[in-house]
Amino acid sequence: MKIYTDVLTFQSAKKREFINITPQVKLALEKSAFRDGIILVSVTHSNAAIIVSDDEPGLLEDLQAWIEQLAPEREDYKHRGRFESNTGIHLQSLLLHHQVVVPFTEGRLDLGPWQFVLFAELDGQRPKRVVIKAMGE
Amino acid sequence: MKIYTDVLTFQSAKKREFINITPQVKLALEKSAFRDGIILVSVTHSNAAIIVSDDEPGLLEDLQAWIEQLAPEREDYKHRGRFESNTGIHLQSLLLHHQVVVPFTEGRLDLGPWQFVLFAELDGQRPKRVVIKAMGE
Amino acid sequence: MKIYTDVLTFQSAKKREFINITPQVKLALEKSAFRDGIILVSVTHSNAAIIVSDDEPGLLEDLQAWIEQLAPEREDYKHRGRFESNTGIHLQSLLLHHQVVVPFTEGRLDLGPWQFVLFAELDGQRPKRVVIKAMGE
Repeated sequence: MKIYTDVLTFQSAKKREFINITPQVKLALEKSAFRDGIILVSVTHSNAAIIVSDDEPGLLEDLQAWIEQLAPEREDYKHRGRFESNTGIHLQSLLLHHQVVVPFTEGRLDLGPWQFVLFAELDGQRPKRVVIKAMGE
Repeated sequence: MKIYTDVLTFQSAKKREFINITPQVKLALEKSAFRDGIILVSVTHSNAAIIVSDDEPGLLEDLQAWIEQLAPEREDYKHRGRFESNTGIHLQSLLLHHQVVVPFTEGRLDLGPWQFVLFAELDGQRPKRVVIKAMGE
Repeated sequence: MKIYTDVLTFQSAKKREFINITPQVKLALEKSAFRDGIILVSVTHSNAAIIVSDDEPGLLEDLQAWIEQLAPEREDYKHRGRFESNTGIHLQSLLLHHQVVVPFTEGRLDLGPWQFVLFAELDGQRPKRVVIKAMGE
């Protein structure tokens, strides 16, 4: 078994955005030449997330509204942060999670027709790093 | 290190159901003959989930009520879907997640006595595919 | 590729506590001598969780308040449990999840400067077991 790593950088023009990165994950898998294994997609920031979801625009609007409702930005959080008070965004990131692990078989991601790997930018306009690590053979 | 894959199909008679699939995961591990490694359990649908939880019936009723409260089905979501408007179920799936990774050691899953792998059917009566992929030796 | 396992035990003096276990995860990685791979951190209890988060004390207070708000302890849950009624804590554990998978490259965890691996004790004063399993080379 072998390991293949890709590191992607995203800089969103918007504060919030869901970016379908399934093509980049597939490309990493193709470059690895692995046929069977698992691929970890992980963001190295606590104000972003990685999810598996349908990417229909209406659903993504609903999803954005939902995380803001469950984990709102508020003035009275205790976190003063190192640079800013962004507790709401941290909680949204924890709700969605910073990583997924996707199995692949015969060189293809084991995802359904309405499952995509999405990078969830929760506080954009700054570069964000996503690590893709495939393990397989 | 080697890889072993099982694919399961579930078709629940009910719309919603939590099915304890620990026996199937253990069987996959047994068939792999691996003693040490990790096992990924992942569902290829965005209207289902995989969790690790106790399977006490009262708790599962509480869990069902909880996800419906946090991610209710509503008429006013923006998602029109390809076939139907099921945003609430998508959000429930995101809340619970579509996958778990369980370590195993000396041929046994590293789960506590009240931890089980559950397939959460959120919108049943249609076949659902669960991929089990073990990596180990 | 090889596998390395560490098992940690925590016994918190408090009922609830977030413990930064990044040093223990780094130590496991160091002992493995792996340079490239993934490391799974998983708790074998359904009243605890493992997360990746900043560990700023104010943020952790906000996080504790948030999980108690989204998954409150209540008297009217249906779960009677084997020993006690602790549905709220189970739901908090499901919300946060019992595991993370962290990639590592050149012998270092692929975590950002404000990302740490935290053990979330949700119902302490009893020993809890955390399995760390690294796979790599």
